[in-house]
Amino acid sequence: MPRTFEELHHLLNALPSPNHEARATAKARNDLLTKPQGALGKLEDLALWLAAWQGRDVPRLDKVQMLVFAGNHGVVARGVSAFPAEVTVQMVANFANGGAAINQLCRAAGAELKVLDLDLDRPTADFTQGPAMEDEDYLDALNKGMAQVEEDADLVCIGEMGIGNTTVSAAIAHALYGGDAKEWIGRGTGVDDAGLARKAEAVAVGRATHGAILGQPLQIARCLGGRELAAMAGAALAARLARIPVLIDGYVAAAALAPFHVAARDFLKHCWAAHVSAEPGHGLLLRRMGLSPLLDLGMRLGEGSGAATAIPLLRAALATHGGMASFADAGVAEKTD
Amino acid sequence: MPRTFEELHHLLNALPSPNHEARATAKARNDLLTKPQGALGKLEDLALWLAAWQGRDVPRLDKVQMLVFAGNHGVVARGVSAFPAEVTVQMVANFANGGAAINQLCRAAGAELKVLDLDLDRPTADFTQGPAMEDEDYLDALNKGMAQVEEDADLVCIGEMGIGNTTVSAAIAHALYGGDAKEWIGRGTGVDDAGLARKAEAVAVGRATHGAILGQPLQIARCLGGRELAAMAGAALAARLARIPVLIDGYVAAAALAPFHVAARDFLKHCWAAHVSAEPGHGLLLRRMGLSPLLDLGMRLGEGSGAATAIPLLRAALATHGGMASFADAGVAEKTD
Repeated sequence: MPRTFEELHHLLNALPSPNHEARATAKARNDLLTKPQGALGKLEDLALWLAAWQGRDVPRLDKVQMLVFAGNHGVVARGVSAFPAEVTVQMVANFANGGAAINQLCRAAGAELKVLDLDLDRPTADFTQGPAMEDEDYLDALNKGMAQVEEDADLVCIGEMGIGNTTVSAAIAHALYGGDAKEWIGRGTGVDDAGLARKAEAVAVGRATHGAILGQPLQIARCLGGRELAAMAGAALAARLARIPVLIDGYVAAAALAPFHVAARDFLKHCWAAHVSAEPGHGLLLRRMGLSPLLDLGMRLGEGSGAATAIPLLRAALATHGGMASFADAGVAEKTD
Repeated sequence: MPRTFEELHHLLNALPSPNHEARATAKARNDLLTKPQGALGKLEDLALWLAAWQGRDVPRLDKVQMLVFAGNHGVVARGVSAFPAEVTVQMVANFANGGAAINQLCRAAGAELKVLDLDLDRPTADFTQGPAMEDEDYLDALNKGMAQVEEDADLVCIGEMGIGNTTVSAAIAHALYGGDAKEWIGRGTGVDDAGLARKAEAVAVGRATHGAILGQPLQIARCLGGRELAAMAGAALAARLARIPVLIDGYVAAAALAPFHVAARDFLKHCWAAHVSAEPGHGLLLRRMGLSPLLDLGMRLGEGSGAATAIPLLRAALATHGGMASFADAGVAEKTD
């Protein structure tokens, strides 16, 4: 695990590739199944993507990890959220007690939920005033995220909880990609018009405050990010190093991974965006990241809820890829042209 | 079950309403759960819709019927499909043997598959030459579809198999809604450019041939439709009469129900479109029908495959609605404004 930015850069510059042979074998099977070529749309793409990253001709989803990271943010003091900061720790307790949306969704989708809270009693610094984290704090959170990924996982899903973290995400996106600060913000958990204006202001000031590091994506992650975002990026990195496919939840999870994508253009090859949320900046960010979301259900909860909702689509992909008969086996006539 | 068009009109003019009380109770529960209001997007809408039609404060999906109707079409003789007509009966055998996509998807989604083939050795007449069906044939197929719905079903999903039936669907849509015949056609199972041109021609000729009945939607269903489409409409009608919610599969299933929607404007209230397919006319048709699809995965298989893929979204909706803690129970602070 990287203990310096140099080591982190080194890892990002030597990422493992998918298994092209497993993908080719899976595709050969796919082409024989009793359906017109491509008629299952993205379900076929998903099966081949899972085959490529799992390195299995017939991929599986026996062990699905749902990793939820929680953090608190100094910028909340600027009145950018509809909920008070103590809700982060209260919701972590709700996860532990099984009462949150993600608990129910993981049970329904057959995923193992792991929640890691990152120093909730010690919010990051307000990024409008200075760096959110020092180097060691950032790298420590990243390493904690990496450590959550289990080598035998067939899929890792990445989500979060953190009052104020859609503001943090907008600040990262604005720093990485520019544009108008307003394009990257939304109502998050339901902030009112005045709060929305404060959010836009914080995002714009954040970029201005950290003008000196705008060309350095990992510094953007440290100075404008948060611990749960660093941990999410770490989890995605550890999954890549173990060639485990990743399902990214919402806006915050995407923003957490964006700096790595800017730093290493093929970083996201093992990732799929589970959904596009109601948060307006999310669709914009996914386009910048070259990701096409599986679902568009107007969700905006976080917690990994969108990723958990998308897991059954992957199961459907594998059920068809693994279980269907071929044209020859079924005695079905093929296309006439 | 209606034995005449008059009886059918009578049923369509006296459709039962949802249970508003069950919906209100379900909504009151939904508003207390530990998430920002509306943060689960369409999952919340789905839970309330299921509550309203099932008449249950806490809806369930214990018994999910997947009804797949198969038919053959005289218009296939005009070279409108990439596959020969015998594929319909071959695919019905594939369903029976468990080798098709829908078998795997139903198993993954916990749905009971019932396949009904409708006189596959006796295709409907070519609608470019005259009516596809006589009154009795149409009503017989409709009644067979009605008979497949079981009173204790919690959800009915409606799909089909029938070489040539995207041409039939385009002909119905063009007759009901007008526009350019080309807007309503697509490549179906993968027809080439020449076949696509023949398809557009057949659809345009179909509308012209039946100019006398264009104002009568049920006559359009009879003259330009097919037995499996009549059966799908019958199944949706029987579900409505029993207040069972319905998930509509693809373009053909939507086209099958469109005449009832034109005949009775609130007919589709108990229906949700599972997905929008790659067939270009499908999105257009859903907008005409006022339906918003749950999924957009580029699927174009039919068989009920899109509906089966969407079932887990409904299960996710019920898992959260039924299983989450309230703010009070979990000790989570509510919104500050």
